Amino acid sequence: MTTKTKTSTAKKRTSIGSRRSPDAEAAVLAAARDLISERGYAGFSVDEVARRAGAGKTTIYRWYPTKADLFIAIYTTERSASVPVPDTGNLVADLVQYTTSLWRFWAAHPAGAALRGLIAEAQGTPEALSALRDRFLPERTADVRRILTDAANRGELQAHEVDDKISLWVGFSWLKLLIGELHKEEVISPVMMQIAGLSSRPKQ
Amino acid sequence: MTTKTKTSTAKKRTSIGSRRSPDAEAAVLAAARDLISERGYAGFSVDEVARRAGAGKTTIYRWYPTKADLFIAIYTTERSASVPVPDTGNLVADLVQYTTSLWRFWAAHPAGAALRGLIAEAQGTPEALSALRDRFLPERTADVRRILTDAANRGELQAHEVDDKISLWVGFSWLKLLIGELHKEEVISPVMMQIAGLSSRPKQ
Repeated sequence: MTTKTKTSTAKKRTSIGSRRSPDAEAAVLAAARDLISERGYAGFSVDEVARRAGAGKTTIYRWYPTKADLFIAIYTTERSASVPVPDTGNLVADLVQYTTSLWRFWAAHPAGAALRGLIAEAQGTPEALSALRDRFLPERTADVRRILTDAANRGELQAHEVDDKISLWVGFSWLKLLIGELHKEEVISPVMMQIAGLSSRPKQ
Repeated sequence: MTTKTKTSTAKKRTSIGSRRSPDAEAAVLAAARDLISERGYAGFSVDEVARRAGAGKTTIYRWYPTKADLFIAIYTTERSASVPVPDTGNLVADLVQYTTSLWRFWAAHPAGAALRGLIAEAQGTPEALSALRDRFLPERTADVRRILTDAANRGELQAHEVDDKISLWVGFSWLKLLIGELHKEEVISPVMMQIAGLSSRPKQ
């Protein structure tokens, strides 16, 4: 599961300096990724990342000014192309497939621990809060926004409901991440039906 | 806003020993409450609580073995009778009133900062995660469960939907707490309609 930095045999890396070389950056990210998976948020420190990567702490801080930046970098590196965006032509089916893939991705990859760390860190510093709310959230909800917007275009919901449904979907998924219940996938289908506005009303 | 411990003039408190006296406990809780409001999760430490309360660190740990226990105690002390549970006979109206009261309470009282701290702490230690999921959540969702169960009894939703709707409601409210958007109350009403299953479907 861990990704080791590969240095080509031709080009021997001597030490990680402050120059932002791809090798050095990969070593720092790999160390950060391993550390958050192994020790979680409480055991994560830039000191330990520096030690494992053989990098200077000030160098790391120059590249990633806050822990939040490191968590976002871990998430972003892993996230690309890991969770496919379905397009079945049906809102509930799309939401169920996408949510199931994302929860499994969070549970199986350091990205899940990194997101937990980012949310926790955001409770402590205004910079992390802003990174989470103003940078991470808009970027990382683009896929579910597309699923909902496509459904609105097909007439499955009203366009003005998209933002609220994104909030419901994010809140529900974060809750399950934050309380460690990503394995309880049986709740996904009924809840996605409710988010889609298809909750069954009692027979009158 | 801060609650100072009152010691009666008749009974002079000399020092806070390990005996769990009401005065000593109140002093510790008041110090913890002040500290979490002033400094937030990142600035919260048992060391500082002990210093402010004039109590021993080991004494505090004996009463509250983890930070999570302290956060729950702060929340519980403040929460009692602060947020009325409406009973208008209409699910959406009940949810809107209750959610508005709760968000204002979270924003205005140290309990909101304590809950943010509890959620953050739960990302670091298994004990805090269990305290949050298995102790705090069931107790603290009893009110919204009653609102939803009463509505199910009136025929406004089906009884088997209650748990999923609680998850949607908790997830949505936590999201707004965790990203610092409790003041954006205009989202409450449309989202509560969606949770109630009253999202307007497009005209076909």
